[in-house]
Amino acid sequence: MLRVGYPARLDAAFLRVMPSEIELIPLADDLAHHIEIDVWIPDPFSTRALRLWPHLRGVRLVLSMMAGTEWIPGTVGPHVTICNGHGAHNISTAEWTISAILAMLKHFPLFLNIQSSGNWRRRKEATAEYEALSGDLRPLHPPVMLEELTGKTVLIVGYGAIGKEIERMLEPFHTEVLRVARSARSEPVVQPVSELDTLLPVADIVVLILPLTDESRGLIGAHQFDRMRQGALLINAARGPIVQTDALVDALNSGKIRAAIDVTDPEPVPEDHPLWRCPNLLITPHIAASSPEFAARSLRVASDELRRYMNGEPLHNAVQLAV
Amino acid sequence: MLRVGYPARLDAAFLRVMPSEIELIPLADDLAHHIEIDVWIPDPFSTRALRLWPHLRGVRLVLSMMAGTEWIPGTVGPHVTICNGHGAHNISTAEWTISAILAMLKHFPLFLNIQSSGNWRRRKEATAEYEALSGDLRPLHPPVMLEELTGKTVLIVGYGAIGKEIERMLEPFHTEVLRVARSARSEPVVQPVSELDTLLPVADIVVLILPLTDESRGLIGAHQFDRMRQGALLINAARGPIVQTDALVDALNSGKIRAAIDVTDPEPVPEDHPLWRCPNLLITPHIAASSPEFAARSLRVASDELRRYMNGEPLHNAVQLAV
Repeated sequence: MLRVGYPARLDAAFLRVMPSEIELIPLADDLAHHIEIDVWIPDPFSTRALRLWPHLRGVRLVLSMMAGTEWIPGTVGPHVTICNGHGAHNISTAEWTISAILAMLKHFPLFLNIQSSGNWRRRKEATAEYEALSGDLRPLHPPVMLEELTGKTVLIVGYGAIGKEIERMLEPFHTEVLRVARSARSEPVVQPVSELDTLLPVADIVVLILPLTDESRGLIGAHQFDRMRQGALLINAARGPIVQTDALVDALNSGKIRAAIDVTDPEPVPEDHPLWRCPNLLITPHIAASSPEFAARSLRVASDELRRYMNGEPLHNAVQLAV
Repeated sequence: MLRVGYPARLDAAFLRVMPSEIELIPLADDLAHHIEIDVWIPDPFSTRALRLWPHLRGVRLVLSMMAGTEWIPGTVGPHVTICNGHGAHNISTAEWTISAILAMLKHFPLFLNIQSSGNWRRRKEATAEYEALSGDLRPLHPPVMLEELTGKTVLIVGYGAIGKEIERMLEPFHTEVLRVARSARSEPVVQPVSELDTLLPVADIVVLILPLTDESRGLIGAHQFDRMRQGALLINAARGPIVQTDALVDALNSGKIRAAIDVTDPEPVPEDHPLWRCPNLLITPHIAASSPEFAARSLRVASDELRRYMNGEPLHNAVQLAV
């Protein structure tokens, strides 16, 4: 019988979706001995999973609950099949992306700052306030007008399942959506990453939602910020190292772009890091994908994949097949 | 030739959409003499328009650029036809509503507060931070999870053009939409205001987007907050006096509800007002409808209405017909 190890801290109720012909082994965070399992569902927090790994023996299949699996191949080696939590984060991550875009276009960071000062600012006063603000809090556009998402051009860099979900949530806003992925496709038109230079200058909003790979590491740097529109909005819902942090800090401080980022490099951001003092920036602490629905959704995905594995059917979410 | 007075501060370029068979009269804010006009396009800021009114003579038609026209009938009297800026604010106000809902569900006020403190808080740390927060900044739900809009039940109170636009923008989130208006309708089902008591307990989010009238003044008070779900989110994109402010302050301070409001009563909020210190609240300064597209859109609406008026056709946006 297949032995499937899962984080003991997970509510066992979520595992009821798993096939019945397996043995479920709860794995405590502080496991001190070796344990033999066939299938490993790692803790969603990679630091916890990495601490556990040295105690595991016999793992042939890793079913990640997360979309990002970049730490796993180097840890488990090439003789293990790795499947990601494809689909489980689509809705929450896409919702965060739309939320971050709208919060920036509607100047909510500025209004929350005004609110915490306890002074009502009507449009005119808010404009005077805006003009009196020094760099740190001063947005690119005076708050006389809230910007509309409707009609904007949105460039989605990384057009996988989450990218598609973002496009679906953009539909009511009649945006023009441009799509970039590793390889070009049609219906809808997806252009290769090599076209980034020609697409960046026409986008009002640039959304990063691609996996961290050797090719995507440092993809957005000074050159790419130079190509962006004045006042363009960068959204990073992917991984911190896809953006060169020094270049991001410069592009924000110069007023060239605005940004909302759920991920950073380094992560966590150290206390004295210049990112904290950048204007026109919203940072959330790598929490975009979180959702009360997450555990149930991702274990449903893992369970379906496990069933295919057990039946010898082609896997849907394999990011590495065992050699 | 029909004499049409408009705010001199408006860019004349926006008035090119107006019928050519009229005389356009720019009205300076500091007009000191009487002026004879037939049609008045008042300044969108009612305080400016009210200062100008005593200098106007002969006005038979008011074409408001705004959706809310509650100050106009009492000012101009019953012998003037009044048309509102129906349609011009739909997109901007609906976008603000979706933005406000999402910003609250994703805890952006808390994350911006953490960001301004310059300390990264991962989920666990954010939870500890949450537990250490005192009432003022403490949201109802720990920030371990961002909430999803997907699948929530949204009650739209006031189902006119903007309410419909809000529903359209909610579509990708597969929300259950409940609708209330002055009079019941079908396709889609719109229930009468008298059903509010039975609908409030099933809504996760309550959106106010109805005109201020004698019936809607004070519509939401202690009784209605009592009927709402624990942690319900109230959005006021309508007019401040529709909500009883004392009851709102109590409902926020007790942790019963959360709110995002673009309008208040009194408005502006005085400096020492308890609203400033309420937890789980986002205030924007009556700016939801603003948009870079606003002047162009509302003057297109006014221009179409003026053409119908000149041709003796039925008006589309009349809120008062001259007696």
